[in-house]
Amino acid sequence: MEPRVKRIYQNLEKLNEKAPDVIAIANATEPMLDMTFFYITRLEVGRYEGSIAFLFPDGKLSVVTSLLEAESASKGDFDLHVFKTGNEFIEIVEKILKGVKTIGINADELTYKSYNFIKEHADKNVEIMDVAKAIKATRLVKDEAEIKTMKKACQIASDVADAIVSVAKVGMKEYEIAAELSYMMQKRGAAGPSFETISAFGKNSAEPHYSAGDVVLKEGDFMLLDFGALYRKYCSDITRTYFCGHASKKQREIYEIVLEAQRLALNAIRVGEPASTPHNVAAEYIDSTEYKGLFTHGLGHSLGLAVHDGGGLNPRAVDTIMEDGMVFTVEPGIYVPGYGGVRIEDDIVVRKNGPEMLTTAKKDLIEF
Amino acid sequence: MEPRVKRIYQNLEKLNEKAPDVIAIANATEPMLDMTFFYITRLEVGRYEGSIAFLFPDGKLSVVTSLLEAESASKGDFDLHVFKTGNEFIEIVEKILKGVKTIGINADELTYKSYNFIKEHADKNVEIMDVAKAIKATRLVKDEAEIKTMKKACQIASDVADAIVSVAKVGMKEYEIAAELSYMMQKRGAAGPSFETISAFGKNSAEPHYSAGDVVLKEGDFMLLDFGALYRKYCSDITRTYFCGHASKKQREIYEIVLEAQRLALNAIRVGEPASTPHNVAAEYIDSTEYKGLFTHGLGHSLGLAVHDGGGLNPRAVDTIMEDGMVFTVEPGIYVPGYGGVRIEDDIVVRKNGPEMLTTAKKDLIEF
Repeated sequence: MEPRVKRIYQNLEKLNEKAPDVIAIANATEPMLDMTFFYITRLEVGRYEGSIAFLFPDGKLSVVTSLLEAESASKGDFDLHVFKTGNEFIEIVEKILKGVKTIGINADELTYKSYNFIKEHADKNVEIMDVAKAIKATRLVKDEAEIKTMKKACQIASDVADAIVSVAKVGMKEYEIAAELSYMMQKRGAAGPSFETISAFGKNSAEPHYSAGDVVLKEGDFMLLDFGALYRKYCSDITRTYFCGHASKKQREIYEIVLEAQRLALNAIRVGEPASTPHNVAAEYIDSTEYKGLFTHGLGHSLGLAVHDGGGLNPRAVDTIMEDGMVFTVEPGIYVPGYGGVRIEDDIVVRKNGPEMLTTAKKDLIEF
Repeated sequence: MEPRVKRIYQNLEKLNEKAPDVIAIANATEPMLDMTFFYITRLEVGRYEGSIAFLFPDGKLSVVTSLLEAESASKGDFDLHVFKTGNEFIEIVEKILKGVKTIGINADELTYKSYNFIKEHADKNVEIMDVAKAIKATRLVKDEAEIKTMKKACQIASDVADAIVSVAKVGMKEYEIAAELSYMMQKRGAAGPSFETISAFGKNSAEPHYSAGDVVLKEGDFMLLDFGALYRKYCSDITRTYFCGHASKKQREIYEIVLEAQRLALNAIRVGEPASTPHNVAAEYIDSTEYKGLFTHGLGHSLGLAVHDGGGLNPRAVDTIMEDGMVFTVEPGIYVPGYGGVRIEDDIVVRKNGPEMLTTAKKDLIEF
């Protein structure tokens, strides 16, 4: 009995959706892996390409995987079926699906090829139903085991955010700072970065989706660093904006406005409120300053096994009601084209008494 | 006119498949991105979540993306459509698909959700056809621009494979070596590792799919390192097995057998031959020694924008005929359970006169 399986079926009921006889979560080739597979199996190691997990209404879980993953899979708490050949794989899948009348799938993270494979090896008149909504709702609310792992991922990123200024020096290139960040995270136990690091100097900080180039750090620059640690398949995601040398009056002003916007947004995070509210609070505050219109993205996104783990704190999220256990990034920013930008991002878990901070790096304006 | 688009349509013809009016390559949320999108647009920066590329038989390319990617997309050589809202997105897609009778999709890297989106916004009687085979055949054969990028990715990994022994010391942990590898690659210009590094000491080297734990390096250990660089979205992938202190007679013997197996496999790489041949040559040689049956995986896989870029050098690949421009890993190994293993992996491009080595790190037995 896997409680996470039970929760998916409970969410189907809450959403007034019909429960299928079984839910099939199928991985294709990396990177086309459904992170739900790892959520449900609790496996922390291995790629599990071409593996399928079958989730039953009573909480039972069956996993079909290849010989390659047999050893690490044997540590899991589920029915394990190991295949040696493609034909054996098909035999096992057909046996599991025999007599099954309805199959749930996760359309958001299933390839069309895998969809066809499942359909082909089920009974002829099988009905396939998309249960992505229930899966998303389930993964959106983290359980305590997940939060414990995420705390570690966030701790690693926070420590590195605090430590990087002792390494950053005038003359270093953006990608060199990105290298230092990854190194420092991995030395602290991260499996790697959770996404491609943004290391933006000077005016590059005004591009929210920049990555890292070979621009050289110089006195007076913004240094915007957006990065995260991957730890036991879970992600953290933090942004800090630092100032090389002395921050100018304008740089300082922008920084303080973004910091205040984040403070207001954090105050607006409450169980029972729509996920759009914190965004609107931050946006309204920024729009009340001379930097009106320069906060050009959503306030935050759900975080978990994926960096964008479904849902977010943005103006469209009026129907997402914040619940205890949801983990979001909170990342307001101001981007002045051709000049530079500031973003301050933390990860929080929604709690009854307000947000619990998962990232803990310093947020006072830092000059180095 | 994008020659890579033309090549996909030419491959459809070669495969005797019907050419659709347009091929739609759609990205979902990371990691569910179709790397074909980046192949066809030649974009080297940006995530392009939720973006779609439309490929026409005359080589024309249209890209629909959000405001977030507008700036980096504007550098591309294609018709660009930027949307601000979800409704605008739908309007643009419907306009492009109006009157289109047949749409090609890449079932291998398209989510079922995106498939439904395309279908929903096309004409009612549209026919959707899977062109994954032609896309795979196209991406399997790299053009010179791709090979140039991959050479750089391979150069970075090779340099690091040579340099790591000056850093590795008794007492270090597996994940610390993994951190050093990432750092050294990023310092040399990699965007990051191309996959999760395998850093296996001692008997852990006998597990082909190990990652990196906190085992401490000690005298007499195998040190198997399998890693690669991500450079402008392309991957390299190299494995070297080193010996801490002096290699024992048995360790040396295993190493020499694997090295000879790789040499034989490389010699069997020839344009016009089936991709299964090099595997069989390596496997037969290993099976002629006392380590019979201990080479437990395929000899190699196609490499490119993805680490497993479709196809490979394995016993099942009898129908894949090696062509000039195909890039493969060549990675025989011997795994002695409970004792340790050796794998030697290089990346090559198939050429008329035999394989051209992309990775160049030293292969003589290295003790450190």
